[in-house]
Amino acid sequence: MNSIDKLTEFFQKFPGIGPRQAKRFAYYLLTRNKSYLIEFAKLVSELKNDVIECESCHRFFEKNRIDTATCDICRNPARDKSLLIIVSRDVDLENIERSHSYNGLYFILGGSVPILEKTPEQRIRQKDLQKTIEERGSKATLKEIILALNATPEGEHTGDYVETLLKEPAIKYGIRISHLGRGISTGTELEYSDSDTIKNALKNRS
Amino acid sequence: MNSIDKLTEFFQKFPGIGPRQAKRFAYYLLTRNKSYLIEFAKLVSELKNDVIECESCHRFFEKNRIDTATCDICRNPARDKSLLIIVSRDVDLENIERSHSYNGLYFILGGSVPILEKTPEQRIRQKDLQKTIEERGSKATLKEIILALNATPEGEHTGDYVETLLKEPAIKYGIRISHLGRGISTGTELEYSDSDTIKNALKNRS
Amino acid sequence: MNSIDKLTEFFQKFPGIGPRQAKRFAYYLLTRNKSYLIEFAKLVSELKNDVIECESCHRFFEKNRIDTATCDICRNPARDKSLLIIVSRDVDLENIERSHSYNGLYFILGGSVPILEKTPEQRIRQKDLQKTIEERGSKATLKEIILALNATPEGEHTGDYVETLLKEPAIKYGIRISHLGRGISTGTELEYSDSDTIKNALKNRS
Amino acid sequence: MNSIDKLTEFFQKFPGIGPRQAKRFAYYLLTRNKSYLIEFAKLVSELKNDVIECESCHRFFEKNRIDTATCDICRNPARDKSLLIIVSRDVDLENIERSHSYNGLYFILGGSVPILEKTPEQRIRQKDLQKTIEERGSKATLKEIILALNATPEGEHTGDYVETLLKEPAIKYGIRISHLGRGISTGTELEYSDSDTIKNALKNRS
Repeated sequence: MNSIDKLTEFFQKFPGIGPRQAKRFAYYLLTRNKSYLIEFAKLVSELKNDVIECESCHRFFEKNRIDTATCDICRNPARDKSLLIIVSRDVDLENIERSHSYNGLYFILGGSVPILEKTPEQRIRQKDLQKTIEERGSKATLKEIILALNATPEGEHTGDYVETLLKEPAIKYGIRISHLGRGISTGTELEYSDSDTIKNALKNRS
Repeated sequence: MNSIDKLTEFFQKFPGIGPRQAKRFAYYLLTRNKSYLIEFAKLVSELKNDVIECESCHRFFEKNRIDTATCDICRNPARDKSLLIIVSRDVDLENIERSHSYNGLYFILGGSVPILEKTPEQRIRQKDLQKTIEERGSKATLKEIILALNATPEGEHTGDYVETLLKEPAIKYGIRISHLGRGISTGTELEYSDSDTIKNALKNRS
Repeated sequence: MNSIDKLTEFFQKFPGIGPRQAKRFAYYLLTRNKSYLIEFAKLVSELKNDVIECESCHRFFEKNRIDTATCDICRNPARDKSLLIIVSRDVDLENIERSHSYNGLYFILGGSVPILEKTPEQRIRQKDLQKTIEERGSKATLKEIILALNATPEGEHTGDYVETLLKEPAIKYGIRISHLGRGISTGTELEYSDSDTIKNALKNRS
Repeated sequence: MNSIDKLTEFFQKFPGIGPRQAKRFAYYLLTRNKSYLIEFAKLVSELKNDVIECESCHRFFEKNRIDTATCDICRNPARDKSLLIIVSRDVDLENIERSHSYNGLYFILGGSVPILEKTPEQRIRQKDLQKTIEERGSKATLKEIILALNATPEGEHTGDYVETLLKEPAIKYGIRISHLGRGISTGTELEYSDSDTIKNALKNRS
């Protein structure tokens, strides 16, 4: 297999990329000049030197000058330690931060659990999550865990799985487990809403 | 203009139908036999003999044998008269009924108010609505009005318009005005949710 | 079943219309006034009085004042009687006429033959077609039959079916059977073209 | 700007990639292990060592062991040197090869000329093309140039530009300039075809 094909194979594993677009990417790189490719390659190979996983919330963050193992959110003393949002991915955290409506902490699962998955513990950071809840629960700082997962079948299944996992420590330490409120989201037309959404929108009316 | 073109013009005014599909409809009818067309035409011309507008909630309903001016929902003594949902269209009412999560009454606006509309009173049943609220308010049966409009710019504008309209009688008769709860609706992915939806989903968590 | 549901059922059989849009159509008619509905119904019920099927090409046309059994294309002495295009539907004929690139006659099959169809003779005007070819062939006016069908599996299957049907009379009367040229159609990108299209585009280069 | 943002910026310049998907790519790489990233980076940085531009047709090809400046198509003695297809990009060449319906040579423009472009000579390999035609024309081997460009406004404009460019040498050396045949391409429905496509499909009927 030649370099173009090898590179195409790499790109084909990128999220949402099919064989045709993967090939387009390879040809696109061929039209760039050598120094551009070297700069790009350097960035890729050194990515994990500069960016590390926060040992507390497990999001990826830039180390910068400060030598630290936790990210700026986890280190921020103004953050409310009684709240912990559990999300699937870094982009979910970023989107919640963008809404400026939450001041607690986070935990990134690093994935979601597909329905019928046989080894769910390999899809998400299960052990890290259990350790985190155990530690914070025992210190009595944590009061509420908010499951902020997609309202899709896979997201709901992930939520159910995580809830079962955390039930025992939650009871032991008196932690409430809550879910994002369901209702009409921006852009929704009533005519096309499902019964569940309508039920929740009525319940959560304000 | 010939009959095919005239019929095409009629179909072009149907909701969501462009000139090409309108013409397809006309040709489709041409391929039906005469008795089918007569049956279809009879149904159209007699539609408003059989179906009348409920004088209470203004939805369309079938008269049937019983000679009545109000629909089965409005006549149902088991319905909770302290709640009134205001919707734009009949299909919205039907969809809420399908969710089996509401037992109050309805009012159908018969449309919505586009932003910048100069004569909003011609777009919705404004006078009928004001009369209904006045009557029910004065009898002290009505406790809450729920605005159940689309979460679109036009729907929100309609809600603002109706709320302004009803503010005075609501205060006079002690009626609460509420809105459908906003949040994550079925199918929503967190990564693509807007800040408003996230804010509400956090507020309405449960 | 009530009138709204009955009407919804009628609309659901319209080409490309699902149950939801069918219901929207019914409610749309309910919001029209009575005289509008009567005008619409009259047009529908009298459609087949004014519009008849041309007994030569079988397209639908408006009778107008002139009492005639053939349409204006078939009656036009300037049309080239040596060419006959076979199309599936009236809209195909209209689109070819709009291109101003053909001056021969037409035959409308009135449908197409799905793959695996057991009674193809019920899907298209088979007998009328055979009669037409027999008549024109025996008068030695017809020199070429052009199959102008969709480049879809169903269109190609229809073309194969019709070609088999006409093979014998075509040989007997010395009539050529041709197909629309394949190639790059407007809007096509080479990268996404199939091998068949490229092969034909190369063969038909000019 | 941190490494994730820098990488996101690189990916945003990839064909068809917006800011959100670019960020997803960056996070995707973060979840890969270090050796994977190094392998990927090596492939990118060495891409232009292994893959070179054919000095004859200008497509990209793998050098392999053989030390050669021309690709396997250009070196193949069985290829018909009297035909030259001009395409915009490598993927177009690949798609034509996949159709197994052409045995001549190619020239890759390396791009296309947008309408109103002020410096078209910077968008395509204009000088290389002129040199190629001059050389092959003077040797009297080349008989026909086939412009195989997209049937889009930009593709047609590129074709016009190239044709004007090659008019003089074509006349001088007796080379025919042709275009891919237009017609119905696979999947096309007659009802939605434009007049140009119908006209060509009728002209190229067979």
